[in-house]
Amino acid sequence: MATQTELSARLRAALKGPVSGLGDLGLTSTLRAVRVEDIAEAARELSNPEILAVFNWLDNERAAELLGLLNDEATSYVVENAPSARITDMLDRLPMDDAADVLDEASPEKLEELLTSLEKTAPDDAEEIRDLLSYPERSAGRLMTDAFMRLRADMSVNEAFAAVRDSDDEVETLSDLYITETVNEDREVLIGVISLRELVRAGARRKDPNVKVRDFMTTDVISVSTDTDQEECARLISKYDFMAMPVLEHGNFVGIVTVDDIIDVLVEEGTEDMLALGAVTPTEKPYLANSIFDLFKQRFGWLLLLFVAESMTGFVLRNYQGELEKVVALSFFVPLLIGSGGNAGAQAVTTITRALALGEVNFRDIVRVIWREARAGLLLGSALGLVGFVRVLIWGNGPNLALVIGISQLVVIVWAVTVGSSLPIVFKRLGLDPAVMSAPFITTLVDATGLIFYFTIAHILLPELK
Amino acid sequence: MATQTELSARLRAALKGPVSGLGDLGLTSTLRAVRVEDIAEAARELSNPEILAVFNWLDNERAAELLGLLNDEATSYVVENAPSARITDMLDRLPMDDAADVLDEASPEKLEELLTSLEKTAPDDAEEIRDLLSYPERSAGRLMTDAFMRLRADMSVNEAFAAVRDSDDEVETLSDLYITETVNEDREVLIGVISLRELVRAGARRKDPNVKVRDFMTTDVISVSTDTDQEECARLISKYDFMAMPVLEHGNFVGIVTVDDIIDVLVEEGTEDMLALGAVTPTEKPYLANSIFDLFKQRFGWLLLLFVAESMTGFVLRNYQGELEKVVALSFFVPLLIGSGGNAGAQAVTTITRALALGEVNFRDIVRVIWREARAGLLLGSALGLVGFVRVLIWGNGPNLALVIGISQLVVIVWAVTVGSSLPIVFKRLGLDPAVMSAPFITTLVDATGLIFYFTIAHILLPELK
Repeated sequence: MATQTELSARLRAALKGPVSGLGDLGLTSTLRAVRVEDIAEAARELSNPEILAVFNWLDNERAAELLGLLNDEATSYVVENAPSARITDMLDRLPMDDAADVLDEASPEKLEELLTSLEKTAPDDAEEIRDLLSYPERSAGRLMTDAFMRLRADMSVNEAFAAVRDSDDEVETLSDLYITETVNEDREVLIGVISLRELVRAGARRKDPNVKVRDFMTTDVISVSTDTDQEECARLISKYDFMAMPVLEHGNFVGIVTVDDIIDVLVEEGTEDMLALGAVTPTEKPYLANSIFDLFKQRFGWLLLLFVAESMTGFVLRNYQGELEKVVALSFFVPLLIGSGGNAGAQAVTTITRALALGEVNFRDIVRVIWREARAGLLLGSALGLVGFVRVLIWGNGPNLALVIGISQLVVIVWAVTVGSSLPIVFKRLGLDPAVMSAPFITTLVDATGLIFYFTIAHILLPELK
Repeated sequence: MATQTELSARLRAALKGPVSGLGDLGLTSTLRAVRVEDIAEAARELSNPEILAVFNWLDNERAAELLGLLNDEATSYVVENAPSARITDMLDRLPMDDAADVLDEASPEKLEELLTSLEKTAPDDAEEIRDLLSYPERSAGRLMTDAFMRLRADMSVNEAFAAVRDSDDEVETLSDLYITETVNEDREVLIGVISLRELVRAGARRKDPNVKVRDFMTTDVISVSTDTDQEECARLISKYDFMAMPVLEHGNFVGIVTVDDIIDVLVEEGTEDMLALGAVTPTEKPYLANSIFDLFKQRFGWLLLLFVAESMTGFVLRNYQGELEKVVALSFFVPLLIGSGGNAGAQAVTTITRALALGEVNFRDIVRVIWREARAGLLLGSALGLVGFVRVLIWGNGPNLALVIGISQLVVIVWAVTVGSSLPIVFKRLGLDPAVMSAPFITTLVDATGLIFYFTIAHILLPELK
């Protein structure tokens, strides 16, 4: 199997060939020999125009698949620049949830153009895509597909079986079969579920035509609502080991979210949380597809904000200029002290942010969390404070300064751990972007405030400053 | 649906009742009414003895399920403290990969005792568990199960169908059916795969008994080897949207890894990477199940190591004591300068660590990555250096110091970004624990080295220091 870099190099080389002749032949044979998933992976290292050229070379079936696999930014480029008729054809071939994802990257004008043209050939699809796009981003409604397998409760095993056999190619999964009741044109309710496996095996045992699907379906079905957050869907699918999860809207059964989409959600949310914790604005693009300016944009805003916040340290230090001039040794320990505080705060914010994402901790746990972390901070601070005390003594800066460092270390760490553990919970509760609560943000916050503790303690304990 | 905290409170209250009488009734009815997955979630907030009590109250079937869902540490406690005969019974009920996971948490003596007793009732299971435990941790061999559905290539559609219908209850998934050829007793090779869906639908079209499974199976099967890292398995399953992935050992088809295990891997690896980046030693336990001392243990080692590394800043500053005494204003900007450097380094290390985990970047990309990051650092450093320059001018510390700060800011950021992006790649390549390359570590490294740049530049540019 060629690696991603080898394949992208081969694709790029083939693209550079003359428009007709060997170049084309090279590209065509390269493209035929590989899976679309591998082309999508290689596309991580291609420029958008190169991706478009590859897209144009693929047959419609494979081009549609590729479109469903590209990152959002490449998708957007292809949708805007490929012939609209071809994109409309792709939309028809893709599962509806993927088609909606693709269109989500189109400009408003392009979106209207494509949907209007799709309405002519496949009005139902166009309507469903409009429906899907009406749900909030990152909700179950956005992820779901209505191409699930429906059975009726009064079907016999053989009838159910025949229904599965004759099912539409578009049905996304046959792992779970849903038993529904159509109340009226606009209302279909979910009354049970069986797995294809159960049906197949029921077939062996229940030849009796009087045995109906109703008799062995599971009626206690776990479902989510169209506005359930995608992260919560992922948590539930992971908890119950489901292959798919039904989605309801006002009690109406409108779609299912499948496990493959959930895997994408897990990877995507993991990336976002991790980058946010590192004070980097998440992007949909793979690392090597970002330009240098993209990298700059992802980082500069946070860096500037943190710079402004960190400027507070300058105010604090200038405020204590007199003390620094009297006891210059005080300045030796500034980075050590606030560095350790920042590190302890980073540990706390990381731990709590992950626990929040995993649903291990909620807002109602805030008092418990702060109480736990304060005690952990007391232990960590005492231990590190002792180390700091001994360290300064050994360096020969005298017992008074050693005591200042030891006590400051304790206070700063308790403070850092408490701030680092409570702020992410508060921010999540307030519905604010938890991305602001990055480890560098906590570090910066602790730097400025920690210095105030430091100099206050120095004032109390150092006779030179009295 | 009761929340995790409500359910654990109910369980705890029921456990406190008298041993026979109302307490039992309360517990029994509480346990009957909820899914095992919910009990496992509630167990996050229970102590180990409480979990053991709940385990003892469940019937064998549900107790086995619970055992498969507990975190490693609770599993270990239950395995060591529940009656061995009961655990042996559980092992027999669990899928083999889960049984191996459970035993992995047992002490060596307990493991031998349980396997010896299992050998009497289910020698095949015992042997398979021994096999699974012989593979390296975090490998496909550890995750796989050999309970997959086998078909022969010369089966007709109806024969294949009958085989599926009569398949063993233990078969873990019927989504994919594997066509194998038994070469001899020890050797079974994988020659193709079909999905149950394809088989069901083939049944509708190919009534001809001469049509064999061979005629419509897929022969181009993607597989992994028993020693493939679990993260790589997850990447492939996610890339190809598989429900299961075959595992080979020296060409022998020995098992499959299923998507539900892969979801667990994704969550677990995501947690580990994130905590490691925050300089926290990962644990299997959910946050609220950790004691204060656990939290201390997860963090203190790193904090102490970072403290020692950060002590270097003290050396550097003491070394420049003369300069600090002459220009006390130099110390005002120390936290700002090294803070910004640390933040830029944290951004780079976070970005690259995630790109490595996603397979977007490899060791062979190291030169490209450094070149990209150095240029991004140059942009970030120039912009922030300019801000710093203006900031110091406005503060009235004179153009010379302003220039020192601006240039130092630029140099420190380029340095931080380069170090932060290259070290994780180097560490991963060396097979060292990438956990050491945490954001706090990079921050700390940049603190000490950044100060040397700062004072060197000050020496060159400040006339007072000449």
